[in-house]
Amino acid sequence: MIAKTEASGGTGLLSEVLTFTSSLPLDRQLLREDLVGSLAHLTMLTRQKIVPEADALAIRGELLATWDAAAEGRLQLPEEEDVHMAVEAQLTAVLGERAGLLHTARSRNDQVALDLRLRARAVCAEVLAELGRLLETLAARAEAERDLLLPAYTHRQRAQAITGGYLFSGYGAMILRDVEAFRFALATADVLPLGVGAIAGTSLPIDREVTRRLLAFARLSHNGLDTVGDRDFALDLGYAVTRCLLHLGRVATDFVDFSSQEFGFVRLGGEIACGSSMMPQKRNPDLFELIRAKSASAVGNLTHLMVLTKGLPSGYNRDLQDDRRPLLELGPLCLDSLRALQMGLAHVEFDRERCLAGLRIGYTQATDLAEALAERGVPFRTAYQAVGALVRRCQEEGRVLSAAPAEMAQAIHPLLNEELLKAATPEGSVTRKRNLGGTNPDEVTRQVAALRRGAEEARSAAVAVPSLGTLFNNLRVAPLR
Amino acid sequence: MIAKTEASGGTGLLSEVLTFTSSLPLDRQLLREDLVGSLAHLTMLTRQKIVPEADALAIRGELLATWDAAAEGRLQLPEEEDVHMAVEAQLTAVLGERAGLLHTARSRNDQVALDLRLRARAVCAEVLAELGRLLETLAARAEAERDLLLPAYTHRQRAQAITGGYLFSGYGAMILRDVEAFRFALATADVLPLGVGAIAGTSLPIDREVTRRLLAFARLSHNGLDTVGDRDFALDLGYAVTRCLLHLGRVATDFVDFSSQEFGFVRLGGEIACGSSMMPQKRNPDLFELIRAKSASAVGNLTHLMVLTKGLPSGYNRDLQDDRRPLLELGPLCLDSLRALQMGLAHVEFDRERCLAGLRIGYTQATDLAEALAERGVPFRTAYQAVGALVRRCQEEGRVLSAAPAEMAQAIHPLLNEELLKAATPEGSVTRKRNLGGTNPDEVTRQVAALRRGAEEARSAAVAVPSLGTLFNNLRVAPLR
Amino acid sequence: MIAKTEASGGTGLLSEVLTFTSSLPLDRQLLREDLVGSLAHLTMLTRQKIVPEADALAIRGELLATWDAAAEGRLQLPEEEDVHMAVEAQLTAVLGERAGLLHTARSRNDQVALDLRLRARAVCAEVLAELGRLLETLAARAEAERDLLLPAYTHRQRAQAITGGYLFSGYGAMILRDVEAFRFALATADVLPLGVGAIAGTSLPIDREVTRRLLAFARLSHNGLDTVGDRDFALDLGYAVTRCLLHLGRVATDFVDFSSQEFGFVRLGGEIACGSSMMPQKRNPDLFELIRAKSASAVGNLTHLMVLTKGLPSGYNRDLQDDRRPLLELGPLCLDSLRALQMGLAHVEFDRERCLAGLRIGYTQATDLAEALAERGVPFRTAYQAVGALVRRCQEEGRVLSAAPAEMAQAIHPLLNEELLKAATPEGSVTRKRNLGGTNPDEVTRQVAALRRGAEEARSAAVAVPSLGTLFNNLRVAPLR
Amino acid sequence: MIAKTEASGGTGLLSEVLTFTSSLPLDRQLLREDLVGSLAHLTMLTRQKIVPEADALAIRGELLATWDAAAEGRLQLPEEEDVHMAVEAQLTAVLGERAGLLHTARSRNDQVALDLRLRARAVCAEVLAELGRLLETLAARAEAERDLLLPAYTHRQRAQAITGGYLFSGYGAMILRDVEAFRFALATADVLPLGVGAIAGTSLPIDREVTRRLLAFARLSHNGLDTVGDRDFALDLGYAVTRCLLHLGRVATDFVDFSSQEFGFVRLGGEIACGSSMMPQKRNPDLFELIRAKSASAVGNLTHLMVLTKGLPSGYNRDLQDDRRPLLELGPLCLDSLRALQMGLAHVEFDRERCLAGLRIGYTQATDLAEALAERGVPFRTAYQAVGALVRRCQEEGRVLSAAPAEMAQAIHPLLNEELLKAATPEGSVTRKRNLGGTNPDEVTRQVAALRRGAEEARSAAVAVPSLGTLFNNLRVAPLR
Repeated sequence: MIAKTEASGGTGLLSEVLTFTSSLPLDRQLLREDLVGSLAHLTMLTRQKIVPEADALAIRGELLATWDAAAEGRLQLPEEEDVHMAVEAQLTAVLGERAGLLHTARSRNDQVALDLRLRARAVCAEVLAELGRLLETLAARAEAERDLLLPAYTHRQRAQAITGGYLFSGYGAMILRDVEAFRFALATADVLPLGVGAIAGTSLPIDREVTRRLLAFARLSHNGLDTVGDRDFALDLGYAVTRCLLHLGRVATDFVDFSSQEFGFVRLGGEIACGSSMMPQKRNPDLFELIRAKSASAVGNLTHLMVLTKGLPSGYNRDLQDDRRPLLELGPLCLDSLRALQMGLAHVEFDRERCLAGLRIGYTQATDLAEALAERGVPFRTAYQAVGALVRRCQEEGRVLSAAPAEMAQAIHPLLNEELLKAATPEGSVTRKRNLGGTNPDEVTRQVAALRRGAEEARSAAVAVPSLGTLFNNLRVAPLR
Repeated sequence: MIAKTEASGGTGLLSEVLTFTSSLPLDRQLLREDLVGSLAHLTMLTRQKIVPEADALAIRGELLATWDAAAEGRLQLPEEEDVHMAVEAQLTAVLGERAGLLHTARSRNDQVALDLRLRARAVCAEVLAELGRLLETLAARAEAERDLLLPAYTHRQRAQAITGGYLFSGYGAMILRDVEAFRFALATADVLPLGVGAIAGTSLPIDREVTRRLLAFARLSHNGLDTVGDRDFALDLGYAVTRCLLHLGRVATDFVDFSSQEFGFVRLGGEIACGSSMMPQKRNPDLFELIRAKSASAVGNLTHLMVLTKGLPSGYNRDLQDDRRPLLELGPLCLDSLRALQMGLAHVEFDRERCLAGLRIGYTQATDLAEALAERGVPFRTAYQAVGALVRRCQEEGRVLSAAPAEMAQAIHPLLNEELLKAATPEGSVTRKRNLGGTNPDEVTRQVAALRRGAEEARSAAVAVPSLGTLFNNLRVAPLR
Repeated sequence: MIAKTEASGGTGLLSEVLTFTSSLPLDRQLLREDLVGSLAHLTMLTRQKIVPEADALAIRGELLATWDAAAEGRLQLPEEEDVHMAVEAQLTAVLGERAGLLHTARSRNDQVALDLRLRARAVCAEVLAELGRLLETLAARAEAERDLLLPAYTHRQRAQAITGGYLFSGYGAMILRDVEAFRFALATADVLPLGVGAIAGTSLPIDREVTRRLLAFARLSHNGLDTVGDRDFALDLGYAVTRCLLHLGRVATDFVDFSSQEFGFVRLGGEIACGSSMMPQKRNPDLFELIRAKSASAVGNLTHLMVLTKGLPSGYNRDLQDDRRPLLELGPLCLDSLRALQMGLAHVEFDRERCLAGLRIGYTQATDLAEALAERGVPFRTAYQAVGALVRRCQEEGRVLSAAPAEMAQAIHPLLNEELLKAATPEGSVTRKRNLGGTNPDEVTRQVAALRRGAEEARSAAVAVPSLGTLFNNLRVAPLR
Repeated sequence: MIAKTEASGGTGLLSEVLTFTSSLPLDRQLLREDLVGSLAHLTMLTRQKIVPEADALAIRGELLATWDAAAEGRLQLPEEEDVHMAVEAQLTAVLGERAGLLHTARSRNDQVALDLRLRARAVCAEVLAELGRLLETLAARAEAERDLLLPAYTHRQRAQAITGGYLFSGYGAMILRDVEAFRFALATADVLPLGVGAIAGTSLPIDREVTRRLLAFARLSHNGLDTVGDRDFALDLGYAVTRCLLHLGRVATDFVDFSSQEFGFVRLGGEIACGSSMMPQKRNPDLFELIRAKSASAVGNLTHLMVLTKGLPSGYNRDLQDDRRPLLELGPLCLDSLRALQMGLAHVEFDRERCLAGLRIGYTQATDLAEALAERGVPFRTAYQAVGALVRRCQEEGRVLSAAPAEMAQAIHPLLNEELLKAATPEGSVTRKRNLGGTNPDEVTRQVAALRRGAEEARSAAVAVPSLGTLFNNLRVAPLR
């Protein structure tokens, strides 16, 4: 049963109300963030002479002990309405009244904002590290498949020849943008809220700059009225996760399709192919289907967070507490999906023959032919119509385009000669697209280098954020004066 | 570590893949549904002579034992990729190969659809029962507050006088529509999916009609291709919950406002008023804020479910497994909020003076005056303009409307005489609106009776759904031939 | 420039404010609804002796003239803040002060609710009629393709053999549920809001029952406080449209895939196949892609409507005006998509050979074989493992399942004899699934009959709603006493 | 009737299909973007010797003429399936076959991406400029209201005293974050897609770097497969707009409440107060209600865009065309709301007496008193309890806190002396919160300076984006070799 304190509403409060309003089942996940935040706050209060050093040492000892107990799995947190009150109750049980010194110049409003920002910041850093790994994976795979020829699709119809290198480089382009989105989310989270109290600041002589440095935040929040009611960092994280999972979902759809018998472009390794409880012949791409599914979860969580803040008045409203479930879910959702995709890609093998077959049959070189005419001065629309007519003739006669007789072609347009027709091969098509962003292997090599630079940037951004453990270890021994 | 079975993909499958794809952490909540579904399936198979009676008795014994073990909290479900395989593994451990008989003519695709529908149907029934209780609560409160006078608001500006009876009847009107929405969701859920196998049915001589009766479903699903990929019952439940929570959120907003010092219309009892960790003077309406917040969670869950099915091909896709979290969350989300609102309403007390004061000052009788003129033949727009002029004069002179001197009024319009002005009281205003849907106390009494009828209908719909326990008790002893 | 009236806020109001707040650009689409509503209200007021008959005749004449002017495309509606004030201004310009009689006992709050409900009701009826047509189309196509054999898919992998009849029956099952959802939405919309005034009713002796009959609504709204702030009818319509478009989107995904070169199951007729501006060889399924896309628009509109009402206090809030765009978009969005799908289906032709080829190669009869063993008493899991082993052997040897040598099969399980293996054909597979919901052609015939009954119900529900034109024609000559 | 071209699908295409698939009704709004993009492409083609200069001059002349005709409102765009084909048809009508040269090395896939990015970039710039103006407005208002005392709210209960300066600075903090979000969206949009053709690039010797400079894009897109299917720039814009409108909605909720009779904190000027059609006494805050409503529209549009891309395979899919409506709506939605808010704020006047009254009665100085005790060494929880007891005593006796007799206070805690009690005034409370982010007037002055810096940054980011008109004027005379 949840304890009734003056902060929660007093002894008359119904237990059922506390059960409904309590966030402890979720925010006990934030215990470590709460302890680190309290250690930093305590250090600052002590340095500012607001809390006597002797008391501070006692409180710090108990905070450290709580961390250690949790790390060793032997912590029994008291049943309170949230993790902040639970820690306070824990301290009070040991230290008595002077435990109350820790809450000086602090409200749960700025305290919870701190815990959530520490978490959001850490998730951004972890995801950035994982995005870096994924970019490396894609770069390596792009190199490994640089000679693989396969069709690219528009409208799920074969369009033009590309290489495996180009395919993976294209996936990498989405991930490069994800790096940007998570850096944006990180910057929003990297702001210290502590020190604005319940809403308007505090009259005690705190120094927020000290706390900021102790917790390695980039900036201080601007204004308390805003700070306690602000969940933009949660929204930004939710948005970055959503956009990223929409990207992963598109890659996943490709591989669900590619692994179908109809496409047959890839074979799923036994490490990842799933079975059926009724149909013994199945090799199912469940892994990719579930990656695709995760985008729905992300959109749902983002929508939850957006709707939550809609129409609230300024300042703190208890509604905001309901940010916990989606916010805490975002990190694992994104990280697990990123890892699952890498796991999946590591165990798909392309069937080079099936991939190439699609290009031989599919008239995917038609545009190249039209462009070759255009290069010889024919207005593109005219060239387009001529090649279109040739394609239709070939289709009627069941021929592939490169096997069109020169006389048939030249009857349609005099410049459609044998040399042009012969050059209409997948290999030629891919090689001739030399411009930036095109399929030429050297250009793809350039693109791959850009993916690697992105990976490096992602890693740099990630390691610039100190982990909770690092912060804790610093605060454990931070000077108190 | 999750067991690797042929159904999950074979022994080569990576553990990390199973961890990512497993639904067991969530769908172990569906154990009871799974057992009841298996008992019904087994009974049907046995009656159809597909499974020998002796084997059936053994399997049934083990299913019953599993239920009992779970009920007594001593069940250790094997780690498998989902609850269905876990139960199968449990049976196999005891019964060996013949446990496999239970999976005859069944696929996880129709099995999971059954479990989810049993859950969705039960949630609909529980919510209907709770809506019935809420309607009774609102009806009783409407009667209790029938003489309370307060302003109704448009644009959050005082508009016209109403009674407390009318306010609670208005809330009840939303809940009446919720009853309809949950009855609709119930009808969608109340369809037996079992018997369509993986996608196309089964060649074994099952009789779905027998299973339907055993599980008390209203109808059989139409076609397997549709059945295994259909989550409309989840969407319908998600929508009904969302619409309901949007309603509760509006009521909650009223009470957040009403309990502010500015409105002062209600006083929160100590049973529900929450405190602050920093500001000792606070009596906060956290309960109502959190009820309002729950609508965000509902919209998020519904969006999750909608996005999940978007663009999927027909048939079963593993994406659908990701329906678990939102679907399982919907029931508690809605039920807890409904109960919280009833708890909240039970502990708010209206301040009759403060409520009435708003009407005395607020010129809320202006429309009545205009309507009185209209009743005497003045075109409404003309009447409206005349009363508008009178209101402005009163505002300039700091008078309330009923204290306007007759000569001032008659200078504006000759029919604005003393009798009319005197009748412009809140009590008169409320009494004179006699039409259906209006504020007259007798009409409100009629409305309250309609709420009570709605409550009765909700209860009837709820009790018509047998509980899982009832189904289990029937199946425990159901004849096997 | 929008006129400044007392109702809009007076002459001091900034033009820019009116431009921002005006709904006229959108709600001029509701002119016909507004006129019909006004005619009914006027008729009631006159019968109740609230408006003199001579005035009523004059006002009615002008309302009729406005309708006719609009029908002939020569109406110049005055620039007012909304369609209601525009019509009022139009009447006043002709009739002077007595035009104001029409606004007696009515507020824009109940007036706009009426217009929107008339529109929502009509959309429901139109969609129901279109769903009826689609069900007939699907039923006819199911009959036409009853002998077509093709694979059904789970996880986008070939699963089991079905017929074209079963495929279209499966699509029909989704549409049957859409009929239910639109009937639910229709019932919500079919409630007269008029007569509750701004929020609390009116003191004038109106008779809402008269208006209800004139406008053929099924019921009266319960309470004014609720009525003016209620947009559940818009939400219900939005939800029904969304669920329906999610269904159409899944059908569309099938046909995008089926028309790819990889599947090759269907050929798009020249009536619907779209081209490319750069690639002359393309025959793109744009029509199906855009049908799939429409589900996004629907989810967006529904979300818009849900978020709009989130957290609003009770009563009317101007926020609600912003329901116009999504609400007005829902009808065309759904109707156009339904028609587009029918158009698309009319011009796809199945390639029977390609469809069948997938079954020959794909081991889709494995389950049948396992079930045949199960029928002979082998526990299903054992049978499943035996057939799984056989499939793997066949795959290694590049054989199709029905060509497995009996000795190889019997070495795996003695009951896997030649007779069983020979029966493992797509035709046999389809025929043997005789249960309700299965693929047997007679069972599909039964399913098709159910689609036809659903079509009939949809049509009946549609025609039970009188069109706006019918209501207008009745009101044009309705007795005024 | 829409023209049937080879690009649209050929002459057999049904008109109804073209009506359903055409985007012209919406994308004719993108005519100017399309012309500017074509001018840049033409210039590059000519410089690269792909198009002869004489032809280029003829085509440019016609493109310029089309722009001018549109500017003068006399353009009749041909009915084609989209704006790109309409412009091409227009050119062909005048120039014949050589008009087709313009389409060389370009596909509609990269062309439409260019038009949309030009639009998204311009919207970002316009919004940034408007955010700069809003920040200036808020800064100025913060200065003007620096002495106004009013309560800040948590849980919609009076919490602590703040100044008007602090309130507006708090609003500004949200807008500062919006500047960051729009700069992020701008960076995503500021990437040239042109040159990747349909999906894989082009074999013609184009130079994308030339086009990039002509259109002043910051970067080139990385890879064609990604580029043609990428709508992240639309999502990022949608997200930035949504977050911004959620912010504006919270400000709007404050002013809806503040202008109620219950709060009475502000008076709406006649320039913005709206009336009622039925209740002549009303002064409604419709402007603020509609600003709040716009967040729903934004969430709807963002959701639309997210769902649209969900689950699509890589490359271009026609689904993406359905991005038009939400994307085109985002700009006006955001700009109009930002302007409406500035308009609204310009015409609200604070009632200083009513604002202050809330502080006198509300015990909002309790925390200050507890902090004063804490400053004297009392553990905060102890101080909190003591002041809580004092507040309850004052409430029982109907006293305000600063009027508590010293003996009563000291009986509760000996340090609660007269000096402390006297200092518990709103003015003292506000002044004593000197820390960064607090309410002290000098600190607020510092915050206001930060708003002004943000305004300057927003303006700089805005002016760095050349307008479409500027680009056009440069391209009109750009050298062709």
